[in-house]
Amino acid sequence: MTERERRVGQVKEITSLANDIIKDIRSLQLKKFRDRDGTFLAEGLKLVLDAFDAGWAIRTLVYTKAGKGNALVEKAAARTVAAGGLVVETSEKVMGAITRRDNPQTVIGVFSQKTTALETVKPAGDAVWIALDRVRDPGNLGTIIRTADAVGAAGVILVGETTDPFSLEAVRATMGSLFALPIVKASVPAFKAWAAASGALVVGTHLEGAVDYRSVDYAGRPVVLLMGNEQQGLPADLVEACRQLVRIPQAGKADSLNLAVATGVMLYEIRRSALTLESPGRPS
Amino acid sequence: MTERERRVGQVKEITSLANDIIKDIRSLQLKKFRDRDGTFLAEGLKLVLDAFDAGWAIRTLVYTKAGKGNALVEKAAARTVAAGGLVVETSEKVMGAITRRDNPQTVIGVFSQKTTALETVKPAGDAVWIALDRVRDPGNLGTIIRTADAVGAAGVILVGETTDPFSLEAVRATMGSLFALPIVKASVPAFKAWAAASGALVVGTHLEGAVDYRSVDYAGRPVVLLMGNEQQGLPADLVEACRQLVRIPQAGKADSLNLAVATGVMLYEIRRSALTLESPGRPS
Repeated sequence: MTERERRVGQVKEITSLANDIIKDIRSLQLKKFRDRDGTFLAEGLKLVLDAFDAGWAIRTLVYTKAGKGNALVEKAAARTVAAGGLVVETSEKVMGAITRRDNPQTVIGVFSQKTTALETVKPAGDAVWIALDRVRDPGNLGTIIRTADAVGAAGVILVGETTDPFSLEAVRATMGSLFALPIVKASVPAFKAWAAASGALVVGTHLEGAVDYRSVDYAGRPVVLLMGNEQQGLPADLVEACRQLVRIPQAGKADSLNLAVATGVMLYEIRRSALTLESPGRPS
Repeated sequence: MTERERRVGQVKEITSLANDIIKDIRSLQLKKFRDRDGTFLAEGLKLVLDAFDAGWAIRTLVYTKAGKGNALVEKAAARTVAAGGLVVETSEKVMGAITRRDNPQTVIGVFSQKTTALETVKPAGDAVWIALDRVRDPGNLGTIIRTADAVGAAGVILVGETTDPFSLEAVRATMGSLFALPIVKASVPAFKAWAAASGALVVGTHLEGAVDYRSVDYAGRPVVLLMGNEQQGLPADLVEACRQLVRIPQAGKADSLNLAVATGVMLYEIRRSALTLESPGRPS
């Protein structure tokens, strides 16, 4: 323990950017180090509590002096200690450096990454899975995970090389929904083999789809919604994986919907009969 | 003309960041200077051509040496000169500084801002106007303008203090749709008076709305869709302006849709009968 690390009860007080623990946490801004450690950052008390409630494993909780004395922060700290994790009290300056923000949150958590293996995913009932082909923008990915949660989708499958769902920006955009849904990573061939064997209705959106997205009967069956990426739409090998290609009508220029918006419009159509004000609920 | 400015035909060659023309253009990153000059930046050849086609007035066209010889860039330069604007050839380094990007586009245009006065807006036929209450995120605003264009909405009304539709980030997110639709700015009282007198069905989304968003008959009448902002939803004074409050059912936690996604889902519902694959078109 260096001079700058002062242990107060179970809490380490660290205010130096040169401290190795802080340096390790800051390194999680980069995918390389997230992958190496198998961890990621969740910013803000709400997200940290969401992660706890959903059973995600915490490694380190960091809070600023402004968070000290807050009953929820204290409780989060106690849960971290109980889980064998480290609790760090730090300055606003260090917190700003960790999260690259001028006005940082008072709490961040370092959690273990968690993904679900594709082979364990068995679409059944009226479960809806969203498969994203090489999605590039972390904000779009996070927003899609958030929307998936809102419509009661079963989970999100990342196909091919996608942006990292555990980046700070993607996690932020999920608004906590990252912790609510399984995230699956799959290669294109693995996804195609799985989709073919899944028995689900695999629906792709495509600008050349001849079928209106509202004319398909999605109700009461498992559906996999496959969305192309921001630049190119679905490539030929993934078009082959679709049982149905559909198109969302547009009045303006072709291809003028943002990916997260198009996914939202599709999901509300697929879940149209399942979602009501009286009984919104997750599919079995 | 300084040594660093070399006029080649109608084109000024400027490669110094200290040049006053470049400094003025860079200053447009800040709202203060956009407001002072009444101008904004459109990045990329596609956006610049979209702006030309929609009749927006260019002040300055800047391109990097990489854009030289490109027929479309040359044509854009000729149109700029014909419109009395300035054409600047610059380095990639200067372009990166103007747009704050590591890999900048080869072309940017400085255009005059253009907004439409609220009192000239007369909703008629099946026109749909989108009114946004204090929207904060430039990406959300740009995406909503893009979606408005995609569904053939009549225009977007910014109510109260919103993020600037002419910021670099908002303009980027519109993907050119900024040039296709009227943008209106209005105070809350002015909007309320206008909405009451407009004869349009003013629909607000609200978490406490008792009516399913799909149960309202939007077809064949002018509609104003009023959306609350990212943090708070609609405040009481704007709730009063609504003839109808609706809610989008959600399976997860309350309020878990991103604003741009919720707006997209609402717009596709409002325009459900108007938008088809056969005859997508703008309302009269």
